[in-house]
Amino acid sequence: MSAAEPLFERIALIGIGLIGSSIALNARQHGLARHIAIATRREETLNRAEELALGDSYHLEAAEAAEGADLVILCVPVGACGAVTKEIAPALKPGAIVSDVGSVKGSVIAQMRPLLPEDVHFVPAHPLAGTEHSGPDAGFPELFQNRWTILTPVEGTDPAASDRLKTFWEGCGARVETMSAEHHDLVLAIVSHVPHLIAYNIVGTAADLETVTQSEVIKFSASGFRDFTRIAASDPTMWRDVFLHNRDAVLEMLARFSEDLASLQRAIRWGDGNTLFELFTRTRAIRRGIIEAGQDTASPDFGRRATPGADEKAPS
Amino acid sequence: MSAAEPLFERIALIGIGLIGSSIALNARQHGLARHIAIATRREETLNRAEELALGDSYHLEAAEAAEGADLVILCVPVGACGAVTKEIAPALKPGAIVSDVGSVKGSVIAQMRPLLPEDVHFVPAHPLAGTEHSGPDAGFPELFQNRWTILTPVEGTDPAASDRLKTFWEGCGARVETMSAEHHDLVLAIVSHVPHLIAYNIVGTAADLETVTQSEVIKFSASGFRDFTRIAASDPTMWRDVFLHNRDAVLEMLARFSEDLASLQRAIRWGDGNTLFELFTRTRAIRRGIIEAGQDTASPDFGRRATPGADEKAPS
Ligand SMILES: NC(=O)c1ccc[n+]([C@@H]2O[C@H](COP(=O)([O-])OP(=O)(O)OC[C@H]3O[C@@H](n4cnc5c(N)ncnc54)[C@H](OP(=O)(O)O)[C@@H]3O)[C@@H](O)[C@H]2O)c1
Ligand SMILES: NC(=O)c1ccc[n+]([C@@H]2O[C@H](COP(=O)([O-])OP(=O)(O)OC[C@H]3O[C@@H](n4cnc5c(N)ncnc54)[C@H](OP(=O)(O)O)[C@@H]3O)[C@@H](O)[C@H]2O)c1
Repeated sequence: MSAAEPLFERIALIGIGLIGSSIALNARQHGLARHIAIATRREETLNRAEELALGDSYHLEAAEAAEGADLVILCVPVGACGAVTKEIAPALKPGAIVSDVGSVKGSVIAQMRPLLPEDVHFVPAHPLAGTEHSGPDAGFPELFQNRWTILTPVEGTDPAASDRLKTFWEGCGARVETMSAEHHDLVLAIVSHVPHLIAYNIVGTAADLETVTQSEVIKFSASGFRDFTRIAASDPTMWRDVFLHNRDAVLEMLARFSEDLASLQRAIRWGDGNTLFELFTRTRAIRRGIIEAGQDTASPDFGRRATPGADEKAPS
Repeated sequence: MSAAEPLFERIALIGIGLIGSSIALNARQHGLARHIAIATRREETLNRAEELALGDSYHLEAAEAAEGADLVILCVPVGACGAVTKEIAPALKPGAIVSDVGSVKGSVIAQMRPLLPEDVHFVPAHPLAGTEHSGPDAGFPELFQNRWTILTPVEGTDPAASDRLKTFWEGCGARVETMSAEHHDLVLAIVSHVPHLIAYNIVGTAADLETVTQSEVIKFSASGFRDFTRIAASDPTMWRDVFLHNRDAVLEMLARFSEDLASLQRAIRWGDGNTLFELFTRTRAIRRGIIEAGQDTASPDFGRRATPGADEKAPS
């Protein structure tokens, strides 16, 4: 903890997987809280969090962790937010800030808001950072560095509470942006949810073919396919909940994707090289923009060349 | 060049982009050829190859490079293979091995075979290795390390010629596999061509939305989208040719992909979480297989965390 006064006296993290543990590490490292209370439903996960020394107190009852906390953050799958809110609501301290990290915002607000007491400040949030791994061991302090956290304050949210949460996330290394929950859900549908869906889908398609074996798919995956398998190795529970809870925006973006794909299919069928060439040229500009914005590495192949593991095996 | 006798006296590389230059670097480094003749159609590219000292002689006429060569490898876009073969055919030395690196094999064979003299050995090949960059500066010697090169010998190919080409590719660090051109084109459609097509497509869809701006797509890309933009930054000419020349296999695999996607769409629409959960669980096994096969890194996020560039900017 830093010498300065911590931003919060007591924070409670309900759920201590990839996101919860990364927040805990930041709160500790940057002195954002004097006391970090950690709750999770399974004893196994709680014990692991304690072994990793992620917090100051450990609870199997979410309400116990939330009691007396100035900031409570739900770090559980989107579909569990309502049930967890019901548990903690009676224990919440008046004036506490209640937030979450869910990848969908409209549904989380619909679940949580009616259950929260009048005298707490509800500021929904979503850190746009993650990896394909999960659980308390997956967290690391740099996860939020240079990534965006989106706040989607609801009508009537106290601006001071939003500001404090913004300071908290900036303390974790994130940049912070504010928008409506509805817009958030549309944006995420195209930059995250549909990409995950098509990654899961192509991996499923490849696994089910009769003409090409699974072992061929694995062996020859370096020609493009392997990129998709990373995303398609993400947590099934989390992603099931994302799709069930952001249904409308996902279906809308998916319809656009399929429409565009049908037109590429037609171009291939009729040998229309110009349509293909024109699209393949346009898409490069977006990649350049992402690299210039510091949101991806410019190294070829994500810099995989330099990573150990992929290339260390000798040809057999 | 190593002290031992080189595998070939003279090799000719027709086309000196990412693949051609990576072959040249390997041929030099591992003593696979006494003389490396390089040809490319544009003076600018040829000068750059010479500046990089990739070969021993430099030619704007492909036939000049091919003359007297024991191994000639076409490293040009798939659609250019017929025209280049026409140029070099009269110059080919009897007994020479003629090969290529095209990402499609059926069409390349159909283009080249009828134009080649009877007295040369035609052994089509495809190294399954690449990055999103192109041109002679993009090459590097480790490109083929631990990756597969597929040979698709045609009926009547001299096994000794196939064996020598296999030894050449193993000298470049690759593992070598043999299969029919038809099967190659099916396998590549699912592990490479369709993945590239859907990556190009989602980037196009995202760029064209009215409800979400391009700058939002770029800013928030780290939640999944950015992975697709790497692939969608690949060379437009090369990829246009791939889709035009592997039409049937691509359309077949694309139909399967779309069918599967429609069923996921239905699951989302009707709130069928089990179907989603079941697929999202199955797909993880494929990822594990790829990592165990040494075809990708196990580090979270492709090990991007450790790469400079992405994280070096301070939050603003
Ligand atoms: N992973 C990402 O890339 C990412 C990025 C941004 C936002 N998010 C959001 O962050 C949240 C957590 O994701 P994560 O990646 O940290 O997940 P995770 O690593 O799988 O951890 C999930 C945590 O939630 C708990 N949990 C699971 N199901 C629960 C239930 N039904 N009721 C109560 N607690 C439950 C788990 O407890 P036990 O282990 O004790 O069962 C665990 O503590 C999700 O809402 C997700 O949308 C994820
Ligand atoms: N990139 C990959 O990931 C990858 C992987 C495996 C296989 N391949 C295959 O390898 C081949 C070359 O790809 P690459 O990535 O090395 O391409 P590249 O870096 O773009 O280089 C292409 C080379 O081909 C020449 N060329 C282009 N169009 C031509 C034409 N119409 N006629 C004659 N020469 C032409 C270029 O000459 P100028 O510069 O002089 O115009 C250049 O020397 C393609 O067949 C591709 O399918 C690529």
